[in-house]
Amino acid sequence: MTILDQLITGFSRLPGVGRKSAARIVYFLLKADTEYLNTLSDLIRRLKPSIRKCTVCGTYTESELCDICADHRRDSNLICVVEESRDVQTIEATGEFNGRFHVLGGVISPIDGVGPEDLSIRKLLARLTPDSEGKVVREIIIATNPTIEGDTTALYLVSLLKNTDVLVSRLALGLPVGGDLEYADKLTLSRSLKGRTKIS
Amino acid sequence: MTILDQLITGFSRLPGVGRKSAARIVYFLLKADTEYLNTLSDLIRRLKPSIRKCTVCGTYTESELCDICADHRRDSNLICVVEESRDVQTIEATGEFNGRFHVLGGVISPIDGVGPEDLSIRKLLARLTPDSEGKVVREIIIATNPTIEGDTTALYLVSLLKNTDVLVSRLALGLPVGGDLEYADKLTLSRSLKGRTKIS
Repeated sequence: MTILDQLITGFSRLPGVGRKSAARIVYFLLKADTEYLNTLSDLIRRLKPSIRKCTVCGTYTESELCDICADHRRDSNLICVVEESRDVQTIEATGEFNGRFHVLGGVISPIDGVGPEDLSIRKLLARLTPDSEGKVVREIIIATNPTIEGDTTALYLVSLLKNTDVLVSRLALGLPVGGDLEYADKLTLSRSLKGRTKIS
Repeated sequence: MTILDQLITGFSRLPGVGRKSAARIVYFLLKADTEYLNTLSDLIRRLKPSIRKCTVCGTYTESELCDICADHRRDSNLICVVEESRDVQTIEATGEFNGRFHVLGGVISPIDGVGPEDLSIRKLLARLTPDSEGKVVREIIIATNPTIEGDTTALYLVSLLKNTDVLVSRLALGLPVGGDLEYADKLTLSRSLKGRTKIS
């Protein structure tokens, strides 16, 4: 197999990249400048050795603590629970959240053989006990995806937390902003009706 | 900038990969096995130093001659002229063509400042003179894309070749197989009518 074919095969393993897109990428790289190729090659090789999980929240970071856990200006009263590290970036991009995060590392999914014990739940519960500075968690926002697995995981967390003083909330479900009623699916629309908000 | 951000920026330069797809790829790589990452990294670094252009047809190859030019079973009477190296792979994938190729390395495009002198046209003409074994090119199939630039380039080649004995042909235009009249654009449909083939 030529290096072209090997690289096309390599790229076609990436998510969202089929064989045709992979070929397009490889022919693009052949015309790209060598410096870009060497940088890309270096970054790919260094990626896994440079990245670890934050010892507190479990998000990907290059140090022991992630930037958010290390930032004393963030609100320790509030923990947003997400499935994966990338969800932290997505929520951070809104600029609307000033609390802390907790990455579960997945969702409960019997089909994939993932149970609660495979998720970072014990660590989450440990974060609820007041720390040395007496800081207490007041609210946990469950931000798992609105899928069957995400909902199951949310319900499981609610059942674990019901005997604590912590307020548990979940991201609102409804119409996407800029969306169109006509294109909303029935489930979303019915959740949007149930969760309607008072405006006057 | 963290290595995650650097790699996302790096991947988002690839064709067809936006920032969101790039992030998805990087998070996929974090969970992929190290061997795959190292192989991918190696291949990207080795790509440009390992690849050169075939001295005869101009397609990308790892040796002096590409596999097709080096294959004595291929028909030397027939040369298929394409824009880019990747078009060679696309036509080879049909398994219907047993001749030789010639890669122009682009198309005439005044907007992009590409003129005939920037393409591998002189080399193509040189291939028309009988070689030491007396092999003669009988037909040139112009397989540039059916775009304004592709058509312009095809017409230019036709004008260059009109005083030779070489037959010049062009890929048929018409409805894509499995397509639907309803979704065909007017231009394609009109070319399809003009180029209709007799069936009885």
